[in-house]
Amino acid sequence: MPGYETDTVTRIETNVDDLPPQVLGAVMQQLLAAGALDVWFTPVQMKKNRPGVMLSVLCDEEKVQPLADIIFAETTSFGLRVEKIQRLKLSRRFETVRTPHGEVTVKLGFKDDRLLQIAPEYESCRAIAERAGVTLREVQAAALAAARAAFAPKPGS
Amino acid sequence: MPGYETDTVTRIETNVDDLPPQVLGAVMQQLLAAGALDVWFTPVQMKKNRPGVMLSVLCDEEKVQPLADIIFAETTSFGLRVEKIQRLKLSRRFETVRTPHGEVTVKLGFKDDRLLQIAPEYESCRAIAERAGVTLREVQAAALAAARAAFAPKPGS
Amino acid sequence: MPGYETDTVTRIETNVDDLPPQVLGAVMQQLLAAGALDVWFTPVQMKKNRPGVMLSVLCDEEKVQPLADIIFAETTSFGLRVEKIQRLKLSRRFETVRTPHGEVTVKLGFKDDRLLQIAPEYESCRAIAERAGVTLREVQAAALAAARAAFAPKPGS
Amino acid sequence: MPGYETDTVTRIETNVDDLPPQVLGAVMQQLLAAGALDVWFTPVQMKKNRPGVMLSVLCDEEKVQPLADIIFAETTSFGLRVEKIQRLKLSRRFETVRTPHGEVTVKLGFKDDRLLQIAPEYESCRAIAERAGVTLREVQAAALAAARAAFAPKPGS
Amino acid sequence: MPGYETDTVTRIETNVDDLPPQVLGAVMQQLLAAGALDVWFTPVQMKKNRPGVMLSVLCDEEKVQPLADIIFAETTSFGLRVEKIQRLKLSRRFETVRTPHGEVTVKLGFKDDRLLQIAPEYESCRAIAERAGVTLREVQAAALAAARAAFAPKPGS
Amino acid sequence: MPGYETDTVTRIETNVDDLPPQVLGAVMQQLLAAGALDVWFTPVQMKKNRPGVMLSVLCDEEKVQPLADIIFAETTSFGLRVEKIQRLKLSRRFETVRTPHGEVTVKLGFKDDRLLQIAPEYESCRAIAERAGVTLREVQAAALAAARAAFAPKPGS
Repeated sequence: MPGYETDTVTRIETNVDDLPPQVLGAVMQQLLAAGALDVWFTPVQMKKNRPGVMLSVLCDEEKVQPLADIIFAETTSFGLRVEKIQRLKLSRRFETVRTPHGEVTVKLGFKDDRLLQIAPEYESCRAIAERAGVTLREVQAAALAAARAAFAPKPGS
Repeated sequence: MPGYETDTVTRIETNVDDLPPQVLGAVMQQLLAAGALDVWFTPVQMKKNRPGVMLSVLCDEEKVQPLADIIFAETTSFGLRVEKIQRLKLSRRFETVRTPHGEVTVKLGFKDDRLLQIAPEYESCRAIAERAGVTLREVQAAALAAARAAFAPKPGS
Repeated sequence: MPGYETDTVTRIETNVDDLPPQVLGAVMQQLLAAGALDVWFTPVQMKKNRPGVMLSVLCDEEKVQPLADIIFAETTSFGLRVEKIQRLKLSRRFETVRTPHGEVTVKLGFKDDRLLQIAPEYESCRAIAERAGVTLREVQAAALAAARAAFAPKPGS
Repeated sequence: MPGYETDTVTRIETNVDDLPPQVLGAVMQQLLAAGALDVWFTPVQMKKNRPGVMLSVLCDEEKVQPLADIIFAETTSFGLRVEKIQRLKLSRRFETVRTPHGEVTVKLGFKDDRLLQIAPEYESCRAIAERAGVTLREVQAAALAAARAAFAPKPGS
Repeated sequence: MPGYETDTVTRIETNVDDLPPQVLGAVMQQLLAAGALDVWFTPVQMKKNRPGVMLSVLCDEEKVQPLADIIFAETTSFGLRVEKIQRLKLSRRFETVRTPHGEVTVKLGFKDDRLLQIAPEYESCRAIAERAGVTLREVQAAALAAARAAFAPKPGS
Repeated sequence: MPGYETDTVTRIETNVDDLPPQVLGAVMQQLLAAGALDVWFTPVQMKKNRPGVMLSVLCDEEKVQPLADIIFAETTSFGLRVEKIQRLKLSRRFETVRTPHGEVTVKLGFKDDRLLQIAPEYESCRAIAERAGVTLREVQAAALAAARAAFAPKPGS
């Protein structure tokens, strides 16, 4: 696909209906700490009137084994669905911008050389908002404005 | 509200994030068997990344105590939210209609004397569909057509 | 509650599991056209393994009767839950701001005299985005920046 | 698979947790206008307690590039998941039927020569319901009855 | 993947927005009775403000045709998405354990020879809970304790 | 209600469709830190095809003002729904139990003098699981077994 980067990742999925959800909250943290690219839950409705949860994990192929080990150890799962998925991506670059409240890291996304996305880093904004006593929205807006002025005649989040 | 019936029911709610969902499926059955008017689950997102479930029960006031007893016994709940709710209702009448596949019970709903709803009873249709070897949709459509011919120059489900 | 406005509205709710969802999409439009303040759907899991929908309508008290009439006519409902709800609100004022792409209406929200919210009106932004051939995000960001410059040393959306 | 048609389509997916949902509503319209076969949202629960949304788009392969361009321009996405999916389909034919309220288009679905589905077209029914001042359900039921009489000794929706 | 078993299954999916959800509840039962490995519903938000449902079915390849026949007969679907999925599984063994309330079947899950999961069978526990007049949780806990004592120095569900 | 404790709390709710969900994740933390009894999100489907979120907060009455101030400052809300809700509760007592992995706090729930619930505290279990290098499930099961032996001839979570 001209202009975009591509790679291949693995998606692991399993439906859970016999484990207390609070355990899943802890499992999400462990999977991210062990190198998962992303982890999310989808509410699903399973047989016998059970309100279940689908656990989805996105990871590089070499992480499938260690992440599967975590899921089998920490949850009640007897089986995982494993699929290879192609991704279409913007190329990325990180920069630092100055705002009235402090310096913020922003992630820039490019199609070829064209800047398409400017995303202030969440943790960077949250830390500054707490320290400066302003709202998170305020810091995000200030970072976005600074990044647009610095890098582009372009939209924003 | 002219034309409609009214009554007052109680809604019991509790959020669950430390019980395997398969247990909730069994609890739904027990609550309905013990006289709940309706029971349903809503997927909710709770603190600490937990994919929880809100259990909602609708019942007459004198059922609050026995249904609460079931919830406290069968689930991990430490507390229930209890609210009185006014309802606006159609008056109801049950009738039997003849279809090519067998007799079906239908529920009729009236505002004053005006027929507003015709609902073929689900279990009645399902039993006939199974016995006659036709689809559930087919039985429902036939029952609706028969009921409209018998009772009304009126819409349908 | 000092600083905030309050009023009382009515919330109408009903669970639907015997109506094709595409009809609900049309009902939402009719309810809004007939004066509902807001209408939304919540996915719920009902008895007998049915993936149902809870329809919620927020309205002023004098609209309960006409909106109930629409629900009983257009859906399969036999009963509605009706609750009075207190609201806590910001006082509101509408203004127009100038952006590079055209004029946009913004809604301002105040606690006492303090400006807390600036919200570019969605339809206003969407119309301009389409006409000017820019993204919706771009118009919203430009309107927000213009409104902040005009009205406030304050946050953003 | 004997009796069914098959083809291959592409599914594009991305999880969104840093864009106001109202923008997604507009993006859905743009994607459909640009040739997407279908677009839908799934509520998901993402890391750091974020209530996110998964955007799913179904399209023919030659539409992947223009639809990806829309998503990258209008949303905050840095990456899309792209999968080829096989479909199993009924063969389709459109017909017009006459109802007491006006003419309605119906879509017929066949496995080999056997009629399996009759679906009154939603927009066609909605236009007539509005013009004739009857409920959408009434028009759909009338169209279904007319189509069954004309084309088949067969079920319906 | 060393230590785990693998196999390939098929996932069938279709989005439904023009069928009453109560029919889907019946379809779930029929699909399971006809040999589906699993069936679940996911709430999705479709175009034109429709609150739809995604039906997902997991099955062995030779079941695709008969299960597709059921979906096309019982629902309003005109097309299904069909994907092959690899699974990673624990090897399984069933055992019986004795509890104070009666005998319960438990499913054991192994990675190579290492016991990773002990799952008391739901229907087995539910039958005993009903007969013995104790809670489902009580029976599950007793079965888990008995199985851990019998088979392993290992975790639990 | 004989045997149960009762109190009255306030539920604050607002629907959000114009704020990035990642901000809501931060708001949940702030509300809990400021004294909310509970905070949760429910996925809802709002007008104009927007996948929104309902924010629900449960709190004591004297917290309504400070929590409302946080919501109006950190989110895009112009109005909140505020309802008083009665609760039915078990009386609670905290105890410490000894497990092979360390000491765990458990919460006990009573109806009159009868012990109905034993809940190992999540954070207490998680800390020990991490320190001892065992799974969270293992610690929870061990704590539950220890608490049942110490306090009761009774069920478990």
